[in-house]
Amino acid sequence: MKYLSGEASSLAGNHVTLANFQAKHFAYSVTGQVANITLNRPERKNPLTFDSYAELRDLFRQMCFADDIKAIVISGAGENFCSGGDVHEIIGPLTKLDMPGLLRFTQMTGDLVKAMRACPQPVIAAVDGICAGAGAIIAMASDIRFGTVRSKTAFLFTRVGLAGCDMGACAILPRIIGQGRASDLLYSGRSMSGEEAERWGFFNRLVDPESVLGEAQAYAQNLASGPTFAHAMTKKMLHQEWDMGVDQAIDAEAQAQAICMMTNDFHRAYHAFVNKQKPEFEGD
Amino acid sequence: MKYLSGEASSLAGNHVTLANFQAKHFAYSVTGQVANITLNRPERKNPLTFDSYAELRDLFRQMCFADDIKAIVISGAGENFCSGGDVHEIIGPLTKLDMPGLLRFTQMTGDLVKAMRACPQPVIAAVDGICAGAGAIIAMASDIRFGTVRSKTAFLFTRVGLAGCDMGACAILPRIIGQGRASDLLYSGRSMSGEEAERWGFFNRLVDPESVLGEAQAYAQNLASGPTFAHAMTKKMLHQEWDMGVDQAIDAEAQAQAICMMTNDFHRAYHAFVNKQKPEFEGD
Amino acid sequence: MKYLSGEASSLAGNHVTLANFQAKHFAYSVTGQVANITLNRPERKNPLTFDSYAELRDLFRQMCFADDIKAIVISGAGENFCSGGDVHEIIGPLTKLDMPGLLRFTQMTGDLVKAMRACPQPVIAAVDGICAGAGAIIAMASDIRFGTVRSKTAFLFTRVGLAGCDMGACAILPRIIGQGRASDLLYSGRSMSGEEAERWGFFNRLVDPESVLGEAQAYAQNLASGPTFAHAMTKKMLHQEWDMGVDQAIDAEAQAQAICMMTNDFHRAYHAFVNKQKPEFEGD
Repeated sequence: MKYLSGEASSLAGNHVTLANFQAKHFAYSVTGQVANITLNRPERKNPLTFDSYAELRDLFRQMCFADDIKAIVISGAGENFCSGGDVHEIIGPLTKLDMPGLLRFTQMTGDLVKAMRACPQPVIAAVDGICAGAGAIIAMASDIRFGTVRSKTAFLFTRVGLAGCDMGACAILPRIIGQGRASDLLYSGRSMSGEEAERWGFFNRLVDPESVLGEAQAYAQNLASGPTFAHAMTKKMLHQEWDMGVDQAIDAEAQAQAICMMTNDFHRAYHAFVNKQKPEFEGD
Repeated sequence: MKYLSGEASSLAGNHVTLANFQAKHFAYSVTGQVANITLNRPERKNPLTFDSYAELRDLFRQMCFADDIKAIVISGAGENFCSGGDVHEIIGPLTKLDMPGLLRFTQMTGDLVKAMRACPQPVIAAVDGICAGAGAIIAMASDIRFGTVRSKTAFLFTRVGLAGCDMGACAILPRIIGQGRASDLLYSGRSMSGEEAERWGFFNRLVDPESVLGEAQAYAQNLASGPTFAHAMTKKMLHQEWDMGVDQAIDAEAQAQAICMMTNDFHRAYHAFVNKQKPEFEGD
Repeated sequence: MKYLSGEASSLAGNHVTLANFQAKHFAYSVTGQVANITLNRPERKNPLTFDSYAELRDLFRQMCFADDIKAIVISGAGENFCSGGDVHEIIGPLTKLDMPGLLRFTQMTGDLVKAMRACPQPVIAAVDGICAGAGAIIAMASDIRFGTVRSKTAFLFTRVGLAGCDMGACAILPRIIGQGRASDLLYSGRSMSGEEAERWGFFNRLVDPESVLGEAQAYAQNLASGPTFAHAMTKKMLHQEWDMGVDQAIDAEAQAQAICMMTNDFHRAYHAFVNKQKPEFEGD
């Protein structure tokens, strides 16, 4: 920004770096400014546990303050994305909880989606194989989704006696694929095929299994090399305008875009254009 | 529910059974826990009248208190779904009403959609042939829609000099098929073909005419054999989250799903899984 | 209306006629009751300037009071729709503005979209060739869009270092093509092909380049010959119900449609039907 020094984020008192973050319950690595999160219990199709839920939530919350990460790729190890909440490690214990305990759990899982939507980095999901339950939710809560023909995405909560309203699905899924198709998936719990997912707008692209992670990473690298202050503003406004009226959204965007016009990246793009060069964005 | 006896609904003082309901202005039957509503004036393509509107509204309102019905199928007799408000029995009389009378009518028709969205049972529409005007609205107001290639769905209000904003169409149709496609149908009043309806997400499935009612009934039976307390919660939340922000929706779902985790059906599903059996849901 | 004389609009004190409006910064003509707006600097692919933005905004605002215009077609001269804000005439000067000046600009561009959504006439965009930046926004802000296979629609704000939240895009685009597809276009700034645009519901129809303007005009003429009071109500309610709950939208439509049942066009349609004639609508 013209009026903010590079240390602006540290003024808020909570700057963090996540390039060297050590994850306990999933794999984590950083390439350039792209973080790669890999759910990695492939022998069980990468289920979630209480611990991995909490660590994911905490990591995405910290991403708000991580200036060194500009995009995030999430995927699963070994030809599956994620099988959802582990039956033995999550469903079983839940059957023994009282209401305050249950609410603590459902609020924690919801907080993961909130954190994914609140962090400034676009999240790109690379989906192959099984993508079920909370796994389907994590894909849904991402900004961009690449998938494979053989993938199976199932919001299968009804299969374990629960409702489709899990972690925001009744609000978010209809906006991605339409109210009618979302209703079918949420009531029936059936799998959405890869072909359906692309045709309905859930997947942005169908990719061969051996390339899906690579294409997601390339997409993330491209965003990370772009005007990342502006990308964060796009994400913020997609979130904020969800339930605004049209006129209110237009007013909100007038302010948001005027802020972006104050950035150096806007000036860089203009000068590069005038000089017939490709702009080099720096995210400020 | 663990903490509610089977008589819980009677505590509210208005428990009803609808297995033996006798309809006057349409056909009605119950198979298992699935109610079948058939608009049946096939010689006129099943138009609606003041009487059938009111009886449908009252029936769907009672469905809130009917523990014996778990899903609803709506269809038309004789190869057509519904031709909408009868020109002679509805349009003609409307031209003679004053404003309070007109408003009484439009509020009644809107109340039918409200009742369809408020009842806890998922509604599955089986659409063949003509599906026009209020008929298209009834299909739109259902949760799930199966249709045929030869079906013609027309929000044709403009053809009788009226606006597309009828019974919620300007709010609901854009969420099903997108704002641009809905605008075209509502301004022009043109028919949407069966193929378009499936491609755009209005129909969940295209089925042969001789099978469309049967497939809708099979889908309804499947839902009725599932965790029906949870299905009702899914329907409630799809409705409630319509105009919530994302974070508010996530919080609402945390509470809704925690309630579902208190049900016996959740426990039944877990124990069935552990014992490698298929769960038998009972809706409590 | 039964209870309003033909001079009703003049009661509001600001009746205007726009059949003979003389535009300075684009071409303008009227055929019957359809206004044709043509962006016409074809040698530069019809970019917008400060002047053309302001004149478009003012014209669309006046349309609210123009009883002689019943539909609007917007297109570009010479095989392109619009290349967006001119780099030399807009982007350059913007890099020199302070925040109040920037906000004045973004509010002006947002006001154009507000005016397009607020005027009672349906707006039909005929899109060929390049449709980029503010050009893509003008297409998006139209009610109906016809396009060509070779068209390229790009929300390319990110390419100039800006965010996707421009003139309402983060609110409106997701409702037209879905949240996931909109996210991809807004983050990446990539072109949407004509085929994608039709498949995703951005274009209502793909048309040959030589016919796209003619088909848009025919569509507009058809609407202009219809119940235009009702069409304006449809447009108003599509706008108003954007962020209403379902029940509130149904109540709002009960009132809106009751008003339409007071019009002469409703009576004309009924009497034409009874007499087996085609109704002649007059817009009152």
